Amino acid sequence: MNDALKVGEALPGGFLWGAVKAGIKVSGNPDLAAALVPGVGQATAMFTSNQVVAAPVTVGRRHMAATGGRVGLVLVNAGNANCATGQVGLDACEKTCVAAAETFGCIFDEVFPSSTGIIGVPFPDGKVIAALPGLKSSLGNMPEHAESFARAIMTTDTRMKVSQASFEVDGVEVRIFGAAKGAGMIHPRLGAPVAPHATMLVYLFTDIEAEGAQLRELLPAAVEHSFNSISIDGDTSTNDTVLLLTSGASGVRLNERTRTSFADALAQVCSKLAYAIVDDGEGVTHVVTLHITGARSEYEAKQIAKSIAHSPLCKTAWSSADPNWGRLMAAAGYSGVEFDPAKVTVRIGAEPVYEGGMRSPAFDEARAHAVMKQRDYTISMNFGLGEAECRFVTCDLTEQYVRINADYST
Amino acid sequence: MNDALKVGEALPGGFLWGAVKAGIKVSGNPDLAAALVPGVGQATAMFTSNQVVAAPVTVGRRHMAATGGRVGLVLVNAGNANCATGQVGLDACEKTCVAAAETFGCIFDEVFPSSTGIIGVPFPDGKVIAALPGLKSSLGNMPEHAESFARAIMTTDTRMKVSQASFEVDGVEVRIFGAAKGAGMIHPRLGAPVAPHATMLVYLFTDIEAEGAQLRELLPAAVEHSFNSISIDGDTSTNDTVLLLTSGASGVRLNERTRTSFADALAQVCSKLAYAIVDDGEGVTHVVTLHITGARSEYEAKQIAKSIAHSPLCKTAWSSADPNWGRLMAAAGYSGVEFDPAKVTVRIGAEPVYEGGMRSPAFDEARAHAVMKQRDYTISMNFGLGEAECRFVTCDLTEQYVRINADYST
Repeated sequence: MNDALKVGEALPGGFLWGAVKAGIKVSGNPDLAAALVPGVGQATAMFTSNQVVAAPVTVGRRHMAATGGRVGLVLVNAGNANCATGQVGLDACEKTCVAAAETFGCIFDEVFPSSTGIIGVPFPDGKVIAALPGLKSSLGNMPEHAESFARAIMTTDTRMKVSQASFEVDGVEVRIFGAAKGAGMIHPRLGAPVAPHATMLVYLFTDIEAEGAQLRELLPAAVEHSFNSISIDGDTSTNDTVLLLTSGASGVRLNERTRTSFADALAQVCSKLAYAIVDDGEGVTHVVTLHITGARSEYEAKQIAKSIAHSPLCKTAWSSADPNWGRLMAAAGYSGVEFDPAKVTVRIGAEPVYEGGMRSPAFDEARAHAVMKQRDYTISMNFGLGEAECRFVTCDLTEQYVRINADYST
Repeated sequence: MNDALKVGEALPGGFLWGAVKAGIKVSGNPDLAAALVPGVGQATAMFTSNQVVAAPVTVGRRHMAATGGRVGLVLVNAGNANCATGQVGLDACEKTCVAAAETFGCIFDEVFPSSTGIIGVPFPDGKVIAALPGLKSSLGNMPEHAESFARAIMTTDTRMKVSQASFEVDGVEVRIFGAAKGAGMIHPRLGAPVAPHATMLVYLFTDIEAEGAQLRELLPAAVEHSFNSISIDGDTSTNDTVLLLTSGASGVRLNERTRTSFADALAQVCSKLAYAIVDDGEGVTHVVTLHITGARSEYEAKQIAKSIAHSPLCKTAWSSADPNWGRLMAAAGYSGVEFDPAKVTVRIGAEPVYEGGMRSPAFDEARAHAVMKQRDYTISMNFGLGEAECRFVTCDLTEQYVRINADYST
């Protein structure tokens, strides 16, 4: 997954990216990023289903509704989430959008704002507004510009998360560039398009030409199998946002002929970013893919996967490469999905661990332990109920995770 | 809550308790306990709602159904849960019940078996059977006998958990003695009486005279507000069991006149044991009571409390006494309960932290931090939706918890 860590030349046309230091992050690193679509783009967004949402989520929803999904500028700050800041926070968000519209020469409600960082601290709109001219000067369409965008949106992330894909139609290349941030409070449950909010922020830029309705139809499927199929700590943030934004600059239309290629490329970019988010999770030492098969429905498969992915006992066992399949079965058992334990089979990597209601006769603890010592591996569980399945990417729970999130100095 | 840590003189009549070392625990401590009701008692039991259940849960359910709730002997081992052990495990459990019935002179299906300990390891029925004569010799009705029972059922518990209550009817004292074990995998969701399974084991002995139907009516309410209102790690065990067993030895009947006194005494014993379980939770340094008020229903109040109690971000913040109310609001926001964040007020102890959609003007970080430095305190959240409320007892998530549960040496 190292290709997720650099920006290649093949960027979609019709975008300019940039970032500056606005003085919001305590670290002093760049913390204000912009993506400008000079021709104004067509977009769709999915927000967190959390009911407590940040001001930019409320404003972003309003703007998407008002414009029917037209976006001229994406404006993202890191270091302050502008969440639980009341009416004052909403006013501050709108002020920055007004100022950005003036600076960048677009329409107020074509500005799509995002914020990530600490919750409940007054939003420093003055710092954002003061940094806008510098932000405009930083814009460009080269890999280093796209990279500066991806780096500025990071908070506790230890590395940039980007992914690219492209496909050709009649000799013309259509490109997708995705940038994401997120390392904790990760268990996105993104609702309907133009619904709510993100500590996981994902921006998907593409130069295909598409209608809003087409984007609203395609994004949910890509999100369901990527960002909605990962969990670090089971906490669903108040700010999660995924934005899919098209410039149309390739001149290639999204239609029956190009739809599958585009959907595949989009799925690939989303899956890589989702995996990169878990891989960079707070304190993570093992990335575990739960492959649940033989379920009655994908929904039930995911219910089982989530129950295991949120079990502190499963997650701590993974941290020490302990093939404690009893904890997997116990977590599946309280998932709410009905099944017969005697029909379940469990494998860790290729190693059989459980079948026929008990430890597999072929269970070899040393070999199972060896699989689990790898940084990433798959746990496969077949429930013998039907044909549905899911893949869910999660991680271990380590002392380092507790240290990071308990860190408080007064 | 120190009274939960010793056994007083006022024990219910009609019971004999005892314990021996059967060689199941690696520590070599006593690990096989019995409570004998020479006159045979009337009981009701609630088991875990987990679908993966241990053999003794399956057998215990069968026995309760077969006898209509008559119990002559409670037989508990610690060190091996006899769970995920297949038909072999069921056979082993039944063999020990048959042997115990012979040794103690009761009927096979009046033996109520329980097991707690490691999952998935073959059950050492030979060790249990060999220890039965010694177990019989150990029986007695003094505080030290009741205490030996309470100690032998411990696994990762650091201290014994017992509680007692009594009330008088026409000069005759009715007594309740409760003993519990449990320190991890604690988020009991106990189903209907004579339903499923426990790493939390609770035995409630009383000498009131009662019908099975009366017990089945009283126990669920006591459990709902105690054992079903606590969580350590959100993991629901495969073996959770609560047994309420009456000897009838006081001669006082459970009826309209004595019902309230008995229900109150039972509630008191259950609440003390439930609190003691959280207080002794793995790695716990803070016990936090979530007092959710202003909810539409008790069910919704509990949904919010559970969402917070299972949030790793809330729990790690508690471990460092960090008054990070943003995490509380975020966890409430994804609980699935609909509410308006602007109508919520949050207090930590008596300190106001959040109101009107933002940080309270009266918020004093140092004072809130001081409250959270105490071992136990209450977080109160009013949602402004209605009159319903709940109290839910939970704890912080510490590096020590991770160390205990990640401990694996190969």
